[in-house]
Amino acid sequence: MTPHFLFNLLDFAGTFAFAFSGAVAARTRGLDVFGILVVAFIVACGGGVLRDLCIGAVPPAGISDWRYMAISSTAAVMAMYSRIVRERLELPVVLFDSLGLGLFAVSGAQKALAYGLTNEASVLLGMLTAVGGGILRDILLNRVPAILKGQIYALAALAAAFIEIYGRSALWSSDWRTAVALAVCFALRFLAVRYDWHLPRFASVADDD
Amino acid sequence: MTPHFLFNLLDFAGTFAFAFSGAVAARTRGLDVFGILVVAFIVACGGGVLRDLCIGAVPPAGISDWRYMAISSTAAVMAMYSRIVRERLELPVVLFDSLGLGLFAVSGAQKALAYGLTNEASVLLGMLTAVGGGILRDILLNRVPAILKGQIYALAALAAAFIEIYGRSALWSSDWRTAVALAVCFALRFLAVRYDWHLPRFASVADDD
Amino acid sequence: MTPHFLFNLLDFAGTFAFAFSGAVAARTRGLDVFGILVVAFIVACGGGVLRDLCIGAVPPAGISDWRYMAISSTAAVMAMYSRIVRERLELPVVLFDSLGLGLFAVSGAQKALAYGLTNEASVLLGMLTAVGGGILRDILLNRVPAILKGQIYALAALAAAFIEIYGRSALWSSDWRTAVALAVCFALRFLAVRYDWHLPRFASVADDD
Repeated sequence: MTPHFLFNLLDFAGTFAFAFSGAVAARTRGLDVFGILVVAFIVACGGGVLRDLCIGAVPPAGISDWRYMAISSTAAVMAMYSRIVRERLELPVVLFDSLGLGLFAVSGAQKALAYGLTNEASVLLGMLTAVGGGILRDILLNRVPAILKGQIYALAALAAAFIEIYGRSALWSSDWRTAVALAVCFALRFLAVRYDWHLPRFASVADDD
Repeated sequence: MTPHFLFNLLDFAGTFAFAFSGAVAARTRGLDVFGILVVAFIVACGGGVLRDLCIGAVPPAGISDWRYMAISSTAAVMAMYSRIVRERLELPVVLFDSLGLGLFAVSGAQKALAYGLTNEASVLLGMLTAVGGGILRDILLNRVPAILKGQIYALAALAAAFIEIYGRSALWSSDWRTAVALAVCFALRFLAVRYDWHLPRFASVADDD
Repeated sequence: MTPHFLFNLLDFAGTFAFAFSGAVAARTRGLDVFGILVVAFIVACGGGVLRDLCIGAVPPAGISDWRYMAISSTAAVMAMYSRIVRERLELPVVLFDSLGLGLFAVSGAQKALAYGLTNEASVLLGMLTAVGGGILRDILLNRVPAILKGQIYALAALAAAFIEIYGRSALWSSDWRTAVALAVCFALRFLAVRYDWHLPRFASVADDD
């Protein structure tokens, strides 16, 4: 198993996990079968599409590569029809979602850098790649994005993108900086869910959100 | 009346119908006159703008061609000020909206293909062109997009884009495949409204949406 | 103090004011510290990013120039932590927000024109630059955009962009048309807030918005 193959595998696993979480959320909000497929696709690919638009990589990979749609549709169908799958996949999905978060942040930052953006802009776009899909999901489902008030999420993505880009500047080897970025993101996110860590807030969360 | 002129005419009729439906919805949500004009324009042109951004056709046609704004503003003013017009146009608007749906799907898919996208991506962008405006409308009006849970809508647009693109691959003549695509989309949508067809859902629709 | 320096200064002041207003709004909606930083940045730079995507100026200036992020983060931190600052800055923020509105409209329209767009499209994109951030803020905070129903806002931005672009066609000197555009926008907006002017509406504003 070459590193590149592993990377692709994790990318697809992250796409699956993001689509699955989107479908589960859409299912409980009264969307129909087709609407659930659409939301799953948007959660999985929306962040990458926003990044590609910002760096001028058109058409965006999420739209031009049919495999992303195939994976997100598979995840959505599994989330829709099988209660057993939903229950069995609950833990793996949290795991893959945390892995996907870091991976999307790292790959998003790399792609932005490859398109000639500055370090700061690449970190920013790495984070956007990772959290953009979740923000679009919550906009479509008509609620304040959980990512902006929940357990440490966008911050974990930012950390991963930051380590990837500035580790490069510090001449860390490519494998090491990616491994450290993924590990830090995963650990931050996992611990935040496990111990219900929150960043400070200044007002109670409104009921309807 | 050449086919091209007919095509343009239908395009403008679809723009009018989409803008009209947007203005009617915005009017009931407490937006002011200018807000209604904005929402009407976004419903009519938003899907095409999203498509143009994704295929790199900048500036988007909806922004650079003043006729779209003129048509959408005319529709919005008519929807705002005349109750008689609103009542008389109710049926034609449903008809034009269904025609516009298919037409936007077909023309969106054609444009994506002309910009070098693959067949699958062109179908996807055709659907986006047709339903994007309606999704943006519901996001602005703070509700879950009706398109994702209502009577068969996005699916009808997908069918039209699919027939257009794969009819081309199957070497159907240009006129035939467009005619079939529009007819299938229109029939699907018309029957769905007439008989209140819905795709399966898994939860009751929340009251506040 | 050269005019160009003054222009930059106003641009940054407008960025600060927009970010500040975004942070104040996000703070009361239960977002966490990081979410508030994100919303502040989106309010300050979102309109410009949308404009840059539409004219093909990628990467967008708001993302590639780190000073915008620095300014918006500073404004957000001040809005979050200091009640005294929030109270003392209330009036200046309304002033800067009104100035920023006109300035973003003018600079947005100029940039669109410089990228070869028509006069009409440039006016449209000038308005989008000025009001886009506020619309994105309200979408994220899950409410109908205040800009579309509140005191004259988008219309003031439109007026500024219109005067800038058509003053140019009428061969007004660059300084004069910008000064008039800013003054008209500021006066319209200031008077609208002062005397609670509204454009006509057709329905009462829903409570939940």
